[in-house]
Parts: sequence; structure tokens; C-alpha cells
Amino acid sequence: MDEVRQSNAYNVSFSVPQVHRLRFTQDVFKTERDVLADVLLPSGGRPPRVQFWLDAEVARAQPQLQDTIRSFCNEYADRLTCIGNLQLVPGGEAIKNDIHILERMLKVFQASGLDRRSYVIVIGGGAVLDAVGFAAAIAHRGIRLVRLPTTTLAQSDSGVGVKNAVNLFGQKNWVGTFATPWAVINDTTLLNTLTDRGFISGFSESVKVSLLKDRGMFDELCRDAAAIRSRDLSKALPMIRRTALWHLRHITEGGDPFECREARPLDFGHWSAHKLEVISDFRLWHGEAVAIGLAIDTMYSSLQHGLDPRDARRVWDCLRELGFSLTAPECADTHALFAGLEEFRQHLGGRLTLTMLKDLGNPIDVHHIDRDKMRKAIDQLAEYAEQPA
Amino acid sequence: MDEVRQSNAYNVSFSVPQVHRLRFTQDVFKTERDVLADVLLPSGGRPPRVQFWLDAEVARAQPQLQDTIRSFCNEYADRLTCIGNLQLVPGGEAIKNDIHILERMLKVFQASGLDRRSYVIVIGGGAVLDAVGFAAAIAHRGIRLVRLPTTTLAQSDSGVGVKNAVNLFGQKNWVGTFATPWAVINDTTLLNTLTDRGFISGFSESVKVSLLKDRGMFDELCRDAAAIRSRDLSKALPMIRRTALWHLRHITEGGDPFECREARPLDFGHWSAHKLEVISDFRLWHGEAVAIGLAIDTMYSSLQHGLDPRDARRVWDCLRELGFSLTAPECADTHALFAGLEEFRQHLGGRLTLTMLKDLGNPIDVHHIDRDKMRKAIDQLAEYAEQPA
Repeated sequence: MDEVRQSNAYNVSFSVPQVHRLRFTQDVFKTERDVLADVLLPSGGRPPRVQFWLDAEVARAQPQLQDTIRSFCNEYADRLTCIGNLQLVPGGEAIKNDIHILERMLKVFQASGLDRRSYVIVIGGGAVLDAVGFAAAIAHRGIRLVRLPTTTLAQSDSGVGVKNAVNLFGQKNWVGTFATPWAVINDTTLLNTLTDRGFISGFSESVKVSLLKDRGMFDELCRDAAAIRSRDLSKALPMIRRTALWHLRHITEGGDPFECREARPLDFGHWSAHKLEVISDFRLWHGEAVAIGLAIDTMYSSLQHGLDPRDARRVWDCLRELGFSLTAPECADTHALFAGLEEFRQHLGGRLTLTMLKDLGNPIDVHHIDRDKMRKAIDQLAEYAEQPA
Repeated sequence: MDEVRQSNAYNVSFSVPQVHRLRFTQDVFKTERDVLADVLLPSGGRPPRVQFWLDAEVARAQPQLQDTIRSFCNEYADRLTCIGNLQLVPGGEAIKNDIHILERMLKVFQASGLDRRSYVIVIGGGAVLDAVGFAAAIAHRGIRLVRLPTTTLAQSDSGVGVKNAVNLFGQKNWVGTFATPWAVINDTTLLNTLTDRGFISGFSESVKVSLLKDRGMFDELCRDAAAIRSRDLSKALPMIRRTALWHLRHITEGGDPFECREARPLDFGHWSAHKLEVISDFRLWHGEAVAIGLAIDTMYSSLQHGLDPRDARRVWDCLRELGFSLTAPECADTHALFAGLEEFRQHLGGRLTLTMLKDLGNPIDVHHIDRDKMRKAIDQLAEYAEQPA
């Protein structure tokens, strides 16, 4: 044992081995069905047992999808066993706010006889992935979860992550677990029916990751912002992939996949984003709130931590060119907004730790916010956002 | 990334670092209060925030314990902050069978403002540790859990483990997680008020571990069985410690702490034990059922896998001398008992994998049970158990 052994005290370090499987496909239910079938391993000589869960909003937008999934099950009947009906669940935050949906999901798993070597395949936006993922994580201490994210946001960010949760006591993500998904398949065709608003909203996470990790990627985002906004997939898809891969790398190489330390660099810009979502009663979508949060913290980084003001301005321009509005009436109430700082601290516990930028691609942890300078950053952003592009 | 990189497929291996802290104390709330206080780390310059949860059965057996804990909180007020009242929860399987108790626990955590860097200290038997541990594991994706097991069974076995769960749909441990406790403190004084039946029942897990891992430990158990049965602590305590340390080593060095593989050697003898508990409507306690399960599988190992029959007989003698009855009317219904094989398989999924013994200290995985030989083992055990010691 790698322990500090005293007579009556043992501190033993060990680690839990994990595998993260990430796939990129063009059309997973047509030309690349094998990619899905191949991640589902037989167990003890039996074909894998599989149950599909589908976001009702995606089912509405893609009316043929349910038949397509049933065909998949039929055509691969020699390689896998589909258990029970295709399960539909409400999309959006609704699924995370109703604990009875969680109970229903567990009941279906149980009635279907799913076990730790069975597969729950969930197709949907981030909220559906979160809720179905939480149910799968606690049933039998973990049924294998395959995520097929259907938004640019989930494909870039949360779908690749190791968290799941539902809301409780009126608080976002109050119960949940850390659990590595068995596999994540980022499929292009599933993005087809997104609205423009939905399509754009994932790219604030690309800006975020580029600012934290990859200055060259930020330059490309600046260059390609207009093309991405007009849904030029030759520019948009590589950027989603790059964002997802940075996320994957952060989880698998960052040394703290289950967030035991105080810093969470991937939450850059998120203290105000979370709060803006809530104050706006979710009129602002997550990706939109993140765009504003990034804009605020980038300018604050310039006022307080030495980031070149020209770079801060480039970040604003990039976000605006991607199609984000950088103004929201909720920003004016800085008193309400600053309550987000304490909520952010409470979520992890311990002392306040925020990520700011010394330079593009060069983040730092800070433990104190100068509220006057933060107000100044917010004011400057409001002025900027009022000017025509 | 340590990945197999193809153009569209990433398989990335990584690991989640963990620390297991195990302490042994004589009297944790009197002479060794520092041991408890020392595992509670300040966070961000603030004293640790701590909430105590206590098994009501333990509170009844040790009427002074609540005052003792309150004194601890008062005397250490400069080093830690006790949040809310001491919380009492029902002991035994009741706490795991009532999902509303789980909801209540979560509500108390939320109302107390506990976060990921707060500590839930739970004092109780295995069922209470399991249920409070599950609530703590999912609140904020994991509040730090400090376990003080109050039974020989929990101190030897489950208290040191990385599982938690409650029952659902009438099935044991149907929902739960794997989560490493922040710390486990095995305290001698907490065992004082156990009944003789309760005291003895933990030692079947010692026999189990010795058969799997440590032949010399088995010899000592044979030698000291009568002394342990008469609660000679000079023999009993080192055996509990040795069992707990083997358990700790299995988790931290076995390579599969969160049970991803098909084999679970620590479940030797447990396929029938789990079933006997249920068929007997929990008249048989877990440790008692494990004693019978070990006796059955030891003889089966002799009939089928080459274990020396004299060694099988020594195992029976040892268990009987420890005070275990090796007969139960439920053993006669082999049809009902054999249903436990399929339930055991289902729990993990995949193919049936059981641990048997080729020799003392030399376990093997088997995937098939010869039911005639298993019936013969059960019959021989019944004959033995009817003879006077």
C-alpha cells in the first residue's frame, strides 16, 4: 500500500481507472450505424442489452427519428437486444425540475431488467442527457450510458463531461454524481433541425475553451465567426470537434476529473452566466448567458489582471460576430448579479476561486473580486453592446 | 492523451485519484478526540463545517453518546463548526427501505447549507452508513463522508468499502453509488454495547477474507475462535483490524475499486448468503448468513475444485467455534436457494462469476455451478451442523 502508515492511521492513495470513448459521425443512424453498434460490447457471451431514451423535442423536430431507431434495432438484432419501447422524455429544464420523472426513469430501468452491463442510449439536449444520465448512474450503482448530444452546446461541452444532475429545492443540479459516460457520439445529422438560435448558442463554449487553452483556436474563431453564424458546417463542425476534444483533454489530463480541487477553469465566465440564466427566468439560454459572462470577465481581466485591452475587445467582437447579444437588462442589477459570486463559492464550498485571464490562453485563479472594477467592466460592455456592430 | 486515436474515434484511458483514510481508535469521543478533529480539514481558511448523523439504535444503547458528541462540538468550537442539531435516523434495514428518509436527509443537508467541502459524520451500523452515505454522495455531487461504524461487521467490511445504497422496488441496494469515504474511524468503545450476537456476527467476514487472502490469518482465527466468541478483545480487535486492512488493500490495490470487472472475490460465499437473508425474511443477519454461505461454498470447493477436504472441515469447525450456527431451515429448499445464483449474476450483469477456493488463500473464478455437487455440499453441511460440537 502506498500509505503513510502509522500505528493507527492509514492514508492510502489509489485511483479508479476510467475509459472515455468519444466518436464523431456524420449520420449515426444511416451510414455509420456500425459506430454505435461497435461501442456496445457483448457481456459474458450475450449480446448487449440496450434501451433508447429520446428527448421529446428532438422527436418532434425529427419525426422520422423514432422509426429510424426502431429500424436500427431490427437490423442489428443479431448483435444487440433492444429492451422495451423507445422511451420519450420531456426536453429542456422541465425534465430536471420534476423529481417524479426521475422516479419514472428508475422504474422503467427496473421493469426492463437493466443491469450494470446494459446500455442506456440517450439522445437529446444537455438537460435530457443530465437527467437520464443521473438515473442511469445510480441504478445498480451505474448502468452504462451512451450519450448522443443533439445540440452544439452539448456536443461541445456537457455531453462530453463527466457530470450528471437534476434540480432539487429550486436549485440547479443540486443532486447528481460524477460518472464517466461509457461513450459519447457527436453526430452531425442530429444537429440539422436546430433553430439558428440553438445552433449558435453552443459556440460561446468554443470561445471560452479557446481563451483558456488555445490562442490559435481563438484566432480561427475570430476569422470564421461570420461563417459559423451562417451555419457553414465546414467551419462550424471542426470548431465543435475542437471544443469537445479540449473538454475531453481537460477531463482526462487535467488531474482533477471529479472536481476535488477548488479551481474549475472550465467555469470561466460562469459565475455571472449561471446567475443571469436564473434572474432572466431562463429567457437567456445557457450558451447566451455564457457569452455575456465571458464578455464581462474578459474586460475585468483587462482592468484587473493585465490582459491586453485590445484582446478583450477582440473577444467582444468575436462573440458579437458569432451572433450573440452582449447586453441583457439583467446586467444592470449588479447587486443581484454579485449574489452569483457567493452562490458560485457555495457550490464548491471553501473559498471563492474564479478563473480570469492574464493573457489569451493563459488563465489564472483569483480569490477576490474588486467590485468597482467589475461594475466598470459591466458598464463598458453595456456601452459597447449599444453601438452598432 | 493516452488514446487510441483514429480520425473519428478517441478511446482515452484516465484515472480518478482518491485517498482512503482509515483510523483505529480506542475511544474517539474521549481520549482520542483529536483523531476525529484532525481528519476534518479547514477549507479556504474557514474551519470545517460538520454535521453529525447518529443511528437511533446506537443512541438507545449508549444514552450518553449524544451529550458526548455535543461536548465534542463545544470543546472543538475553535477548530470546527457543527451545523444544525445532531440528526437521529432509524437503525437497521428500515432506513434503507423508506425512500422518504432519503428525501429528509437531503432536505436537512440543503437547509443546513452543506457543500462539497462540508463533512457529514455518520455513526452507526452498516445500514445507516449505507443510507446516509448515499444521500451525502449525491448532494452537490458529493459531500465529504466520515464513517464511524458501530458494529464488528461494518468495522471489518462495509464501513471500509466504497459503496453506498438504499433499497428500491423491494430490491436490496437497487440505487446507490460508488464513492470513497473521506475517512473511516474504527473505534473500540463504540462496539461496547453490541449484544453477543451482534459482536460475533462480524467475524464471518474475517473468515472470508482469510480464506481468500491470508492462510496464516485463518490459522490464527482457528486458534483464537473461542476467545473471540467470549469477547476477548485482545484477540478480537486485532482480527477486526486485520480484516479491515485486507478490505482496504483489496480496494486500493485490487485494480477494480468500482467493480467494473466481472469478478468480485470479496463476495465469496455471498450468492447463497444474500438469498438466505431474504428467504429468512432477515431473521438471519448478514454475518450469520455469510457464515453459512462460506461453509457451503467451502465444501463445494472441496467437491469440485480440489480444496483439501480436511481444510473444508477446518473452516466449518472454525465458524462453529466462533459461535455461528451452520444450519438454517432455509437451506433445505435448494430450489429457492439456487434462484440466488441468477440474482447474483443479474446484480453485476454479464455471465455468472463466482469465487471458489482451490486451496486456502488461493481463490479462483468459476462460471458454472454443478448443482448436484452443490446439493451434496449443502447436505453434508446439514449433517455436520446436526452433530454436537
